[in-house]
Amino acid sequence: MNEPATAIEAAVAASPLHQLKDELDIVIPTIRNLDFLEMWRPFLQPYHLIIVQDGDPSKTIKVPNGFDYELYNRNDINRILGPKASCISFKDSACRCFGYMVSKKKYIFTIDDDCFVAKDPSGKAINALEQHIKNLLSPSTPFFFNTLYDPFADGADFVRGYPFSLREGVPTAVSHGLWLNIPDYDAPTQLVKPLERNTRFVDAVLTIPKGTLFPMCGMNLAFDRHLIGPAMYFGLMGEGQPIGRYDDMWAGWCIKVICDHLGLGVKTGLPYIYHSKASNPFVNLRKEYKGIYWQEDIIPFFQQVVLPKDSTSVKKCYIELAKQVKEKLGKIDPYFDKLADAMVTWIQAWDGLNPTSASFSNGKTG
Amino acid sequence: MNEPATAIEAAVAASPLHQLKDELDIVIPTIRNLDFLEMWRPFLQPYHLIIVQDGDPSKTIKVPNGFDYELYNRNDINRILGPKASCISFKDSACRCFGYMVSKKKYIFTIDDDCFVAKDPSGKAINALEQHIKNLLSPSTPFFFNTLYDPFADGADFVRGYPFSLREGVPTAVSHGLWLNIPDYDAPTQLVKPLERNTRFVDAVLTIPKGTLFPMCGMNLAFDRHLIGPAMYFGLMGEGQPIGRYDDMWAGWCIKVICDHLGLGVKTGLPYIYHSKASNPFVNLRKEYKGIYWQEDIIPFFQQVVLPKDSTSVKKCYIELAKQVKEKLGKIDPYFDKLADAMVTWIQAWDGLNPTSASFSNGKTG
Repeated sequence: MNEPATAIEAAVAASPLHQLKDELDIVIPTIRNLDFLEMWRPFLQPYHLIIVQDGDPSKTIKVPNGFDYELYNRNDINRILGPKASCISFKDSACRCFGYMVSKKKYIFTIDDDCFVAKDPSGKAINALEQHIKNLLSPSTPFFFNTLYDPFADGADFVRGYPFSLREGVPTAVSHGLWLNIPDYDAPTQLVKPLERNTRFVDAVLTIPKGTLFPMCGMNLAFDRHLIGPAMYFGLMGEGQPIGRYDDMWAGWCIKVICDHLGLGVKTGLPYIYHSKASNPFVNLRKEYKGIYWQEDIIPFFQQVVLPKDSTSVKKCYIELAKQVKEKLGKIDPYFDKLADAMVTWIQAWDGLNPTSASFSNGKTG
Repeated sequence: MNEPATAIEAAVAASPLHQLKDELDIVIPTIRNLDFLEMWRPFLQPYHLIIVQDGDPSKTIKVPNGFDYELYNRNDINRILGPKASCISFKDSACRCFGYMVSKKKYIFTIDDDCFVAKDPSGKAINALEQHIKNLLSPSTPFFFNTLYDPFADGADFVRGYPFSLREGVPTAVSHGLWLNIPDYDAPTQLVKPLERNTRFVDAVLTIPKGTLFPMCGMNLAFDRHLIGPAMYFGLMGEGQPIGRYDDMWAGWCIKVICDHLGLGVKTGLPYIYHSKASNPFVNLRKEYKGIYWQEDIIPFFQQVVLPKDSTSVKKCYIELAKQVKEKLGKIDPYFDKLADAMVTWIQAWDGLNPTSASFSNGKTG
């Protein structure tokens, strides 16, 4: 980084967004020592970390000094959830969603341990969390496209022809950030373009329109767990499951149809992180190949899903969605029966850890 | 401009896109001498211009030497179209659509005479037309959002989770470019933010998803007239009409629902032009105020419009849309009856000037 850490720390501390330190948890799934946090220290140290240790629970994960954290390994998850621990994936970063469940805060920022601080075109280190918070605290505009992108960004507004009745926007539930350097490609694209790097800095945030699905990546993601938390389930992946690398995709399809139904917004674009390490495309191909053909049926299912009017809370929506997954996707493979059951177990487990959250519904926080 | 014109000319001539000079017309509506073309000379001089002179037909419009052009004033329009000239607006830049009709080329680029060559962040002059051609010649992806924006851009691709069956995309019918400096705001926003300038260069092109409407600005716009031309009608505006400044908006709503129905794509983003002159917000308010409240009914109409399956060509779609406009919007104001009639007249006039174009339909060119 070009700037001394102390200067960045001063800037971070001075930011009004810094106030959110008591309302936001950072969730990190990992199997290794968290040295990557050193680079994030000026931005993330004020916040509480929830570390979900994947793989061998007897291994010790080292966390750099000065960070405030709680850490859960598989033994902890099994102890806390009992039989309901079956809904939490093992040997897959999908395990991160356990962190969403044990958090007691309003906001979550989740980041992978191979993601570093990116620089904007001027060379300045990007405070990814600050941008996520901006995204979450300003409304979304899912009903009409604004050609100058986020109308709530500095120096921007709604353009001529944007209906005035839609300018209030809706609450933002999800902020999906992007990645410089290693792009988030599937195994076939990785194999075909091993050297492709993302160097395009697109200075925009935009609302993904209502009715449009997107591929949500869990690498650099923030959300309002009071608004959408119970739908942010990363599914069954990894050990004992027929697929991997579709955990965040699954969550993305689910949260999008539920946000559309409840009138909540999903933003994508800024902030960028620097993604350092391409995963092994051969391993990825093994994890992905069933997903690659299953998604040809899954996407039309999510494009056509209709949630009933009385599904007025995220949890009601999610239980209804689980029912439809079982009915419609169960035909593809018995895996989807199991997944639908796990979706219900997830909600039960969520309720167990968040007893008062039953009162959460669209736009209201408990 | 930093670069000598000759260097730019050499680069333009070397571009494979330069080949399109026999397939593309540039349409410029104007009431003044076209000195602004001097700055565009290196990029636009190879192309044929169609100038639509608005206002007093006795006035002489000067065109810089070396440009190949045809010019139509109101007398020409009346002579060529006879009674059907009633569908072409007068004293409003909506008159530009006459140029779309008299063109015999496959592609149109239309630009306002207060738009200049913009620079990218590196200081390089932007060849707006070249970017529009790139946009039009590469597919659109309206059925699923790609988080790294245009997957056909250099160095980009579809991200993990993008369904493979949708990666072929669909033909692109419209390329909507943006503006640095003076943003395209409505009168109320102009009044509230008189000093706001757009300085954000967003290095992205994206497909506007199926089912989503957008405010299409006619200032910097290109399209494939074989694919969508007959729907690119800018309505009745200006003299004798109750509104102005909704000409491009009207066309944008119409082309979007028709592109969605026919499986064609609409892109927005790059290229930028430099918009030099803010129009008078007080004059604009007078032109816009009926549009501002009418659009609160018009937008829901376009959001809900359904075109029948047998509307398999742009013209059939447009005639059907005219029928629905009369039925559904005629209630708002008699203006919409007149507009619906003008939409039909426009198609008749188009057919008169484009006798063979009856064979154009989705994806096919004559």
